[in-house]
Amino acid sequence: MVYELYYWPGIQGRGEFVRLALEEAGADYVDVARREGGMDLLTAALDTEEYPSFAPPFLKAGEMTVGQVANILMYLGEQHGLAPRTDPGRLWAHQLQLTIADLVTEAHDTHHPIATSLYYEDQKPEALRRAADFVETRIPKFLGYFARILTNPEPRDFLVGDKLTYVDLSLFQVIEGLRYAFPKATQRMEREYPALTALRDRVAARPNIAAYLASDRRIPFNQNGVFRYYPELDQ
Amino acid sequence: MVYELYYWPGIQGRGEFVRLALEEAGADYVDVARREGGMDLLTAALDTEEYPSFAPPFLKAGEMTVGQVANILMYLGEQHGLAPRTDPGRLWAHQLQLTIADLVTEAHDTHHPIATSLYYEDQKPEALRRAADFVETRIPKFLGYFARILTNPEPRDFLVGDKLTYVDLSLFQVIEGLRYAFPKATQRMEREYPALTALRDRVAARPNIAAYLASDRRIPFNQNGVFRYYPELDQ
Repeated sequence: MVYELYYWPGIQGRGEFVRLALEEAGADYVDVARREGGMDLLTAALDTEEYPSFAPPFLKAGEMTVGQVANILMYLGEQHGLAPRTDPGRLWAHQLQLTIADLVTEAHDTHHPIATSLYYEDQKPEALRRAADFVETRIPKFLGYFARILTNPEPRDFLVGDKLTYVDLSLFQVIEGLRYAFPKATQRMEREYPALTALRDRVAARPNIAAYLASDRRIPFNQNGVFRYYPELDQ
Repeated sequence: MVYELYYWPGIQGRGEFVRLALEEAGADYVDVARREGGMDLLTAALDTEEYPSFAPPFLKAGEMTVGQVANILMYLGEQHGLAPRTDPGRLWAHQLQLTIADLVTEAHDTHHPIATSLYYEDQKPEALRRAADFVETRIPKFLGYFARILTNPEPRDFLVGDKLTYVDLSLFQVIEGLRYAFPKATQRMEREYPALTALRDRVAARPNIAAYLASDRRIPFNQNGVFRYYPELDQ
């Protein structure tokens, strides 16, 4: 089966968490909207699907369409051995993924604290305030939490169990995104929590991920995605 | 087994989505922090659990602890027949629940667009701007989406399949919350989408839910929860 990923073509965004899982799994997939005419297919699917997604990304897997990043990852995790097999492990992995999703939303809202429909420039004073709190309070709380899981009660190589899951791929992406958007704040955090850097490096070194990151399938970070670099927000 | 729900004692908040599922299921549960000394148990659990939650609510089910509202509901749904049995149905229900979670976060951020750690009064100008967009753009988009699912391709009694799931309970709670926080905007929406009101009424009439809503276990909405009534935000 060839998966069809539907997501905005010009950004990593939330779709990147799905791309990383597909790439690590070595799955056969089409990034629909990056092909010619693909954007029309994406908008048509949003309007006409019997099980419509509120927003991209969504994934077509044969007859089934799955939306919401964490939900797609839960599905792919089960299909491709990127999630625990037991119920408690499966739920724990998903719980961590949902916490990553919360962090991603907050990272997005640093540059769009008022409305997604407005430009950054039209909400910059509010963005400065929100980003200050994100840097001072929220990044430390989130990254401290994940570092705690990687080190307590003893150091571990992966967030869940003793092998890689989709949650590790997602935390890798979060660290990459934070490095891009908040380089100074993230450097401080990584110094405090070397376990995060070690996990990031462990994921980056996996053959399928390394090949993906070196390919043109990996869209560079840019100022349209979830993680954006505005130096004034990284104080 | 007696479930233990850990959540802030004075508010409905995100814990209410879990309470509604437990009540509909007729499950045996303790609302830990509402008992004497319970707050100490809650804060201790956040600090000491081997599988710690980032924030309440979390649910202890025997040896297992499950956190994140949508994840808890997925678990309870499987245990108590409040979710579809098939994989596509299970994923579709969860996708809708995650979309409800996004709506709840946005509703919260109308009164806290800058920082959860600040008072509303310290972010009121920003709240006015964010709430205006929420009322004009986001409530219609979210509620229009759920109304579409309830009416296309044909009218249906429940969001998923032909019986009640945890998603219906959660949409009931969202409508109740929006009625409290944004009465004028919500009235307009319900006039446009009577299917939403019908679903809300269908859930409210279920015997276990009706009994719960009439009991003192149901905490009234108030100005500390996710849904808060500030008349100036409901324009």
